[in-house]
Amino acid sequence: MGAAVPGGARDPSDERTSMQLDESSPLPLYRQIYDSIRTGIDAGSYPPGSRLPSIRGLADELQCSRNTIDAAYSLLVEEGFVASRPGSGYRVLDLHQLSPVPAPAAAGHTSPAAPAGANPVRYDFSYGNLEPGTFPASAWRSIVDDLLLSVESRTCDTYTNPLGEMALRQQIAWRLNSSRNMDCTADQIIVQAGTAASIQNLLALFDSGRDTVCMEEPGYDGARQVFSRSAFPVAPCRVYGTMENFFEDLEKAQPRLLYVTPSSQFPTCSVMPIKMRARLIAWAEANDTYILEDDYCRDFRYRERPLPPLQSMDQSGRVIYMGTFSKSLSPALRMNYLVLPPRLLERWHEKFRGAYPTVPWLSQAACARFMADGQWDRHLRRLQMKNLRKYTALFEALQKAMGQKVDVLENGTGLHLLVDVKDGRSQEELLALARAAGVAVYGTERYWMSENHPLKSCMLVGFSAIREEDIAPGIDALAQAWFG
Amino acid sequence: MGAAVPGGARDPSDERTSMQLDESSPLPLYRQIYDSIRTGIDAGSYPPGSRLPSIRGLADELQCSRNTIDAAYSLLVEEGFVASRPGSGYRVLDLHQLSPVPAPAAAGHTSPAAPAGANPVRYDFSYGNLEPGTFPASAWRSIVDDLLLSVESRTCDTYTNPLGEMALRQQIAWRLNSSRNMDCTADQIIVQAGTAASIQNLLALFDSGRDTVCMEEPGYDGARQVFSRSAFPVAPCRVYGTMENFFEDLEKAQPRLLYVTPSSQFPTCSVMPIKMRARLIAWAEANDTYILEDDYCRDFRYRERPLPPLQSMDQSGRVIYMGTFSKSLSPALRMNYLVLPPRLLERWHEKFRGAYPTVPWLSQAACARFMADGQWDRHLRRLQMKNLRKYTALFEALQKAMGQKVDVLENGTGLHLLVDVKDGRSQEELLALARAAGVAVYGTERYWMSENHPLKSCMLVGFSAIREEDIAPGIDALAQAWFG
Repeated sequence: MGAAVPGGARDPSDERTSMQLDESSPLPLYRQIYDSIRTGIDAGSYPPGSRLPSIRGLADELQCSRNTIDAAYSLLVEEGFVASRPGSGYRVLDLHQLSPVPAPAAAGHTSPAAPAGANPVRYDFSYGNLEPGTFPASAWRSIVDDLLLSVESRTCDTYTNPLGEMALRQQIAWRLNSSRNMDCTADQIIVQAGTAASIQNLLALFDSGRDTVCMEEPGYDGARQVFSRSAFPVAPCRVYGTMENFFEDLEKAQPRLLYVTPSSQFPTCSVMPIKMRARLIAWAEANDTYILEDDYCRDFRYRERPLPPLQSMDQSGRVIYMGTFSKSLSPALRMNYLVLPPRLLERWHEKFRGAYPTVPWLSQAACARFMADGQWDRHLRRLQMKNLRKYTALFEALQKAMGQKVDVLENGTGLHLLVDVKDGRSQEELLALARAAGVAVYGTERYWMSENHPLKSCMLVGFSAIREEDIAPGIDALAQAWFG
Repeated sequence: MGAAVPGGARDPSDERTSMQLDESSPLPLYRQIYDSIRTGIDAGSYPPGSRLPSIRGLADELQCSRNTIDAAYSLLVEEGFVASRPGSGYRVLDLHQLSPVPAPAAAGHTSPAAPAGANPVRYDFSYGNLEPGTFPASAWRSIVDDLLLSVESRTCDTYTNPLGEMALRQQIAWRLNSSRNMDCTADQIIVQAGTAASIQNLLALFDSGRDTVCMEEPGYDGARQVFSRSAFPVAPCRVYGTMENFFEDLEKAQPRLLYVTPSSQFPTCSVMPIKMRARLIAWAEANDTYILEDDYCRDFRYRERPLPPLQSMDQSGRVIYMGTFSKSLSPALRMNYLVLPPRLLERWHEKFRGAYPTVPWLSQAACARFMADGQWDRHLRRLQMKNLRKYTALFEALQKAMGQKVDVLENGTGLHLLVDVKDGRSQEELLALARAAGVAVYGTERYWMSENHPLKSCMLVGFSAIREEDIAPGIDALAQAWFG
């Protein structure tokens, strides 16, 4: 920390500080200044509302350049300790306003955060977040630069198309039609602010007082949460055992909407067989039901070529297709899309007449450009290769370190594997042992609606966020924790 | 158009084109090439799926630089006529996929688009969009640049805080507390993807089977649409006549939620009197009702200082405050925020446990930085001054050109005036006369729930989008159209 001494400056700002800098410290000067003021804020010597010394004054006093002070102050501003107000300099913010929000309890497509007080996580086999550096920040930057420098930036002054930017919808339609055997027009595509927002809006086309929703059991709890929040009754359809289980449950519930994940069932990663697909579409047609096909993970298929989506087999406009950019580009972009069959598209136009878009123009325009000039395809290919390597590494590490002690459910898709420890220990016990060893793997209870189910001790081991080189050592540590 | 001749090139792409460029044309070369290919696509000489000549080949043939060809092709890609596919060059897209979507019928906070086939609009007195150039594109660009170059860009690889970025929520809280007399913490602020999305999510905390919503009559139809879409019964409360009308309606409807616009009632722009505010809060407390205060237009007040928001007078946690960036920064940013009272905040945490954010991290981080370093304040001051000038110009132009023939409802707030023509002609007739003269002003029928109301012939004349210098000539043209 060097010899930086907590600043003793008080309001007014022209009072001299007691800040001292250590020339021999390995910390850069701006960092020493920052540390000193931070300590002062914590200790109360800079109370809320008090002014920091002026940049010029402090630079003179410490005999350093104003840029150094400016860098320290900017960091304080960025971190939310200090606000800069034109004309009145830098003021310390009220830290009582800054108490951290409880960490968001993550749902479904993300694994939950580690419990507070747990050992530091050395190896995080979470599912959902992407490996640092996945987002093509520098390519994105030059596209955003171009857009904001061009006359197109004028679009920022207007309300834009509520269904999404045509250029982006065309790029999406083109790819769905050319690489997924689908047959849709850009008009059918509606750009949305994520899976939950999509489902929530879609539910406006249904009637919570009359319509039941079915979903897979086990299934994505994030979708279930949206159905419940919108007050729709939800009935589970078993995707384990035989296919008849599923159709029995479906027949019994008679849903108006069925949510499925055919290309990689969440969380089992199984692929819906072609026979079941045909039967499902016929069932939907015969029973006046819509199928919401969440194709969230189609880009990652590690053995065979993916089967065409349900949407491409649907002749009677029963399938709503949903795709996302969260797994392949950025979860923080908050962008996905729906492809509506014509009848529902009409209903959407009625219900959302005069509505506004929910995704910023700039995100959409940048993504359209990223796709149009071919960068998307290169980016996706790289990520597919990387995920294939990680998938293989994880599977092999589990085989090597745990062998017959575990069953590994893998289906050549997805961004995680399910691992079943066969010695009868409970999921809680196994998760706790792992956490104690600094390895985060995740439970699967939340994906079930029923209490009794055959996968009690299955754990989710994700590889979307962990670095390739951490997979083998992480699994070794996990084996050590579980089997000594 | 120059002498550019429709390109006769067909697949395969190495065939020579018949494209000819006109050196003496005032059109730049890339534009001539673009025009030629566009014409070719329209005429069918570039059928869907056909490849454009390679950039190098066409540059050689036309003896121009590859950059010129690249510029023409990029424009075609951007406009959605052509897709670039790595390895296979530029291909013409299927135009049947590109049939334009019906123009979004705009709602409430935006004026509707001109009817098809109308005269070109020379003067658009619309409400909602901002004047071109309002968005600080270049400042925004340098902030986004910084963010994407820094290690912070790693956030793009993760799911972020569902309530919004803390840095932004702190900036918002600081400003609300210091400039609006409010007393809220950053924890109470939830960043959302626009007014409609905010209301839709908020309604998840209420019960459509049991709870009635009240809103002002006349009032913002966009909010009414969301209430209806979520199946809530909506009851109007008259804001014309005496204050007793309003409370009579309220008493009768006994709503659980009341939507109001106290700082600038939409669309009348009246300011809710202090007496009514106190009474409303007391009523809400006594009747277990929440008040949703939409403070969409608070930044623009042209005479007195604005009254403090209802939220600042609320001692019992009955007021939900809603603010937006659409009127002051960018409607295309799709960003606004809610400030929840503690009880509802708890309910929100329950209902949205594990939910995801709906606003991209990059938008939030850029906005936080824009606010933190003082650019926001300067930007807002400039816009306030500009809107004051436009407000004054519009009011004076109406007085000068129409004098006693009209009543102008103005209350020193808002981004539009209401104009009432007193000679008994219908709104339809007056709007049609204006459109025929190339002047767009807008009807107000959509803001009413009841058919019989006292403002039948009032029209909305907005000044948010029109340029300052177009206001006087536009009003002169309108006066000419209406009164000859």
